Amino acid sequence: MASFSCPLPLRQHITIQLAHGSGGKLSAELIASMILPRFSNPALDRLNDQAVLTLPPGRLAFSTDTYVVDPIIFPGGTIGELAINGTINDVAMSGAMPLFLSVGLVLEEGLELATLDQILGSMEQAILKAGVQVVTGDTKVVPRGKCDKIFINTSGIGVVPDGLVLDPARIRPGDKVIVSGTIGDHGLAVLTSREQLSFATRIESDTAALHGLVALMLKGSPGIRVMRDPTRGGVATSLNEFAASSGLGIVVEESQVPVRPSVRSVCEVLGLDPLAVANEGKLLAVVAPEDAEPVLAAMRGHDLGREARVIGEVVSDHPGLVALRTPLGVKRILEMPVAEQLPRIC
Amino acid sequence: MASFSCPLPLRQHITIQLAHGSGGKLSAELIASMILPRFSNPALDRLNDQAVLTLPPGRLAFSTDTYVVDPIIFPGGTIGELAINGTINDVAMSGAMPLFLSVGLVLEEGLELATLDQILGSMEQAILKAGVQVVTGDTKVVPRGKCDKIFINTSGIGVVPDGLVLDPARIRPGDKVIVSGTIGDHGLAVLTSREQLSFATRIESDTAALHGLVALMLKGSPGIRVMRDPTRGGVATSLNEFAASSGLGIVVEESQVPVRPSVRSVCEVLGLDPLAVANEGKLLAVVAPEDAEPVLAAMRGHDLGREARVIGEVVSDHPGLVALRTPLGVKRILEMPVAEQLPRIC
Repeated sequence: MASFSCPLPLRQHITIQLAHGSGGKLSAELIASMILPRFSNPALDRLNDQAVLTLPPGRLAFSTDTYVVDPIIFPGGTIGELAINGTINDVAMSGAMPLFLSVGLVLEEGLELATLDQILGSMEQAILKAGVQVVTGDTKVVPRGKCDKIFINTSGIGVVPDGLVLDPARIRPGDKVIVSGTIGDHGLAVLTSREQLSFATRIESDTAALHGLVALMLKGSPGIRVMRDPTRGGVATSLNEFAASSGLGIVVEESQVPVRPSVRSVCEVLGLDPLAVANEGKLLAVVAPEDAEPVLAAMRGHDLGREARVIGEVVSDHPGLVALRTPLGVKRILEMPVAEQLPRIC
Repeated sequence: MASFSCPLPLRQHITIQLAHGSGGKLSAELIASMILPRFSNPALDRLNDQAVLTLPPGRLAFSTDTYVVDPIIFPGGTIGELAINGTINDVAMSGAMPLFLSVGLVLEEGLELATLDQILGSMEQAILKAGVQVVTGDTKVVPRGKCDKIFINTSGIGVVPDGLVLDPARIRPGDKVIVSGTIGDHGLAVLTSREQLSFATRIESDTAALHGLVALMLKGSPGIRVMRDPTRGGVATSLNEFAASSGLGIVVEESQVPVRPSVRSVCEVLGLDPLAVANEGKLLAVVAPEDAEPVLAAMRGHDLGREARVIGEVVSDHPGLVALRTPLGVKRILEMPVAEQLPRIC
């Protein structure tokens, strides 16, 4: 615990010390040298214990997620990008335009400053790309062995346009279920990197901020009932939530579900169902039948929606249940998984 | 890792399993049986990935903190109460009325459900007492040894009344520095319980939500310049931040600083400075000289402000520095501590 009285400036350390999280000079130096330069904006730079913000009119959307993914750097992304994009997406699924984020870091003593810097750099890129601001934050350090390198909480706020209500209670029989692209990429990217499995094809995470795609979809498509990004528990979990909340059934056409060949083949080898694997840059939307084509057309005009397609339909049969129709025409129940097949994918 | 495929309902477990955080049925059951009943309200009960809220007019205050205190249950409080009250206080220091919180839990596999329930129960009591709502949340589980029982992030939002700006830039020479009560209680409560030190007097944490006190202070006292709750790094850190941000000096009268005899004697034994020890239910306010008496009178009308008093004054000498005047009249520099003297006190 020598570090508590250690007067050395940050640049003389190459790893996180307990004192970097203790609220004194070393904390201030860590924040000033490594964190503020990445996220600088007038609200954050005040370094008050809270940001005071003026928002455009509308209802507020508010969401939170803590990211504990292992490993913290994986093909296609880092825990930092995931934390920015994931919370943006949770806000955006309400139809809100995400505006402001908070970032709460828990760092393990001994984390290399170079690794932290790489993660902060990826967060900076993600917020610039998404056009949001990190306006308030917190940094804690715990002793070696008391967390796993770094955990990141992000909370996000956005503004929902007046009159817009996306809710599973709005789902009606005959509605179409749309997915924005291939599924299972994120979960398998993390799994194959963690287990150092060697497959011919490298699978990359799909981590991305979806609010731009959402804005295009909402423009002129009043028939969107509800949207959700199928993260933990995958598409199977989100569709079961829709079915349970609406008291209706959903039939998914297995042949229509877009899955990359590399993801499909690794899933087959490992005995995983891509429908239950996490995504971090995909969305599901339930839309009125007459709105399916206009919404798909809008989605295909966005990089993150090029492969959007209808994968199923809402039915009044089997209320609360999701059925999967196989290419042979057989239907089976698509259950909510008891647990994500892969732990710590976000 | 047998728990991934474990179909047992929650009531058949007595500890947290990895699958409780994996987004599937066991996650849903943990949330439905242990979390929702504690925090139930219409926004949260929807279980969407975000809450959609209608706020009263005014600017938004937004704050975040992750709580990693060790031990998780200590004299006078739990990590759960601390997480609710601490974020309420960070929001309230802007003059805002705190309204809504998010809660992000990171649970260690093996945490006893009874312990989790005790912590959630203390959070429920804290939100009821404070009159705020938890409207959105997230629960993650990490394997044994990858966190320390439980970490809790809370983010909070509140609304700042029109025209109110509390900012250290508003501090002027001659302003008075007020503290709301005794200092050092929280840090020493945690330390003495952690180290199982045995002292004659039990020291209790001062964890409390301060927004009611703040509202009283603001009512009719337009001369409040800035407020801050001196948590990590204690009063010494907050005053140094005021001095640095305002470019003015502060002189603290040591004899005026309220410290409980039990706290003072334990500090003496352990070689700690109470001015650098964390508080979780106290605030510092800098006020115009003519406002000191009215503000103190308002504070003394509230349970959490009965022992409020002026402890110092803003000066134009020694800009950026805080000086402590001892009872003998000697002045010495009160530095920002290099680190909190006690790690993981919040």
